[in-house]
Amino acid sequence: MITVLSGGTGTPKLLQGLKELVNPEDLTIIVNTLENDYFSGVYVSADIDTVLYTMSDMINDELWYGVKNDTFITHERLEEIGCSELLRIGDIDRATKIQKTQLMKKYGLTKAVEIQAEKMGIKSKIIPMSDENSDIKIITDIGELEFHDFLIKHQSQPEVLDVKFSKVKPADDIIDAIKNSRAVIIGPSNPITSISPILSLDGVRDALKEAYVIAVSPIIGNDSVSGPASKFMRALGIDVSSVGVASFYEDFLDNIVIDIKDEDKKIEVNQIVNKVIVTNTIMNNLDAKKNLAEIIINSIP
Amino acid sequence: MITVLSGGTGTPKLLQGLKELVNPEDLTIIVNTLENDYFSGVYVSADIDTVLYTMSDMINDELWYGVKNDTFITHERLEEIGCSELLRIGDIDRATKIQKTQLMKKYGLTKAVEIQAEKMGIKSKIIPMSDENSDIKIITDIGELEFHDFLIKHQSQPEVLDVKFSKVKPADDIIDAIKNSRAVIIGPSNPITSISPILSLDGVRDALKEAYVIAVSPIIGNDSVSGPASKFMRALGIDVSSVGVASFYEDFLDNIVIDIKDEDKKIEVNQIVNKVIVTNTIMNNLDAKKNLAEIIINSIP
Repeated sequence: MITVLSGGTGTPKLLQGLKELVNPEDLTIIVNTLENDYFSGVYVSADIDTVLYTMSDMINDELWYGVKNDTFITHERLEEIGCSELLRIGDIDRATKIQKTQLMKKYGLTKAVEIQAEKMGIKSKIIPMSDENSDIKIITDIGELEFHDFLIKHQSQPEVLDVKFSKVKPADDIIDAIKNSRAVIIGPSNPITSISPILSLDGVRDALKEAYVIAVSPIIGNDSVSGPASKFMRALGIDVSSVGVASFYEDFLDNIVIDIKDEDKKIEVNQIVNKVIVTNTIMNNLDAKKNLAEIIINSIP
Repeated sequence: MITVLSGGTGTPKLLQGLKELVNPEDLTIIVNTLENDYFSGVYVSADIDTVLYTMSDMINDELWYGVKNDTFITHERLEEIGCSELLRIGDIDRATKIQKTQLMKKYGLTKAVEIQAEKMGIKSKIIPMSDENSDIKIITDIGELEFHDFLIKHQSQPEVLDVKFSKVKPADDIIDAIKNSRAVIIGPSNPITSISPILSLDGVRDALKEAYVIAVSPIIGNDSVSGPASKFMRALGIDVSSVGVASFYEDFLDNIVIDIKDEDKKIEVNQIVNKVIVTNTIMNNLDAKKNLAEIIINSIP
């Protein structure tokens, strides 16, 4: 079994490569749930849905959000009648969210996602990091913002001063999944808002210390490949570089993949992590995704 | 001012005629809310939405439910993923329901409908009978059923033994609307499940006794023009005929319109209600709707 810790953009790209190489039954994906919230009467778990759509080949992989070729009839009508949605929810995507909301009320989030994954023909195990409702606030130079307000309404523009998030209980199977894996892959997701919430769950860091953990740096040079990761790292006083990423995961990391453009940082990173792989980490097509996935899989002892 | 008491099918047909004849600002429509309930995370007030769509020329007037030429992308996807919706909610229609749910939480149902009506360019006043959540149960030969289960899931097939509904507080403007009207029109809606809930509100019957009230019988011969009205009347021991309708409204009714096919009942109905108009009440095209509306308007003293 291989377990992947995932957020919503960088790691799903890697999953597209991994799913071509690894027997789907041998893949478990633990997904961040921290930004989950209700919008338009439905529960939106953006990262989980992105992973569900990625694993079922439905993902809109230009936006890494929502369903490929979806329509937006309800969304556009809401705008017309003066009730704009903050999130651009497509008509097919809305069905996923309606179903999840109903299943959650009956069974909790973990079971809801399990049922949805099965309906979508996904053979890998997708586990939300927690069944509990959580909350994340971004403290910025223009005040305290909800995560989606920061990301969408304010287009990640404000300066980030701090990030606060609520402590939640890990979902039942998470610690076991990590313990029973021959390797845990930390995808190139935002270390602060996507991976750190998973790491903060009781027992996860201890389990990772016992596991073989390999991370892909989401930082190349001094900036994030996508999204506002660098902004968040800077706010928390973490060096925005593959060196900073290595330090952030230092206590449990066995292996890190950094980009060829960071070749010059290899020695410094190597002082923090035992094994460093330097390769192309820009996954702009399926071959690149498969290549990176293959390098990762082959590096597992 | 003319006030109309409305359910979801017969009366909206009449409204299509009335809105061509009466200055829209001079029309108030009090709408049944008894079957309102949450479906797929949104508040569904079927009769109110039918009236909103009727007054804004958006109604699907084949089904008297939902929006003309709507698409059903979310609805069909829900079915595909094993989460069928009991109500067939279209994509445009869903936006109405999402907006109403959000506005309701902030302002209550009356204000929510007022805002939606304004957004749809409706100049008439549409008032839900109550801002309170209500409940209706149909007691049948196969057990106690929710209204929509009876109507849709069981296609109104079971024998009705009784109807139970919760007592709710009338919305603020209802009694005033009745008092300030030169006539109240009770449309050809189901007397038991659509009109009776409005009549049961505190103060409504007393206000109607003071008003000029004209009803259109939804029964021709011994059957309802549409829907299961006859079934409900029979269950409550009311004669299924225009005579029965007249008796049901007897204590406040000044004038009743019965169908030409019920010509032979005119004398009997006249023993119950002072004035009886015999005319075509089948509204199968706009001319028929306008004709009936005109006859009603002209009969008001």
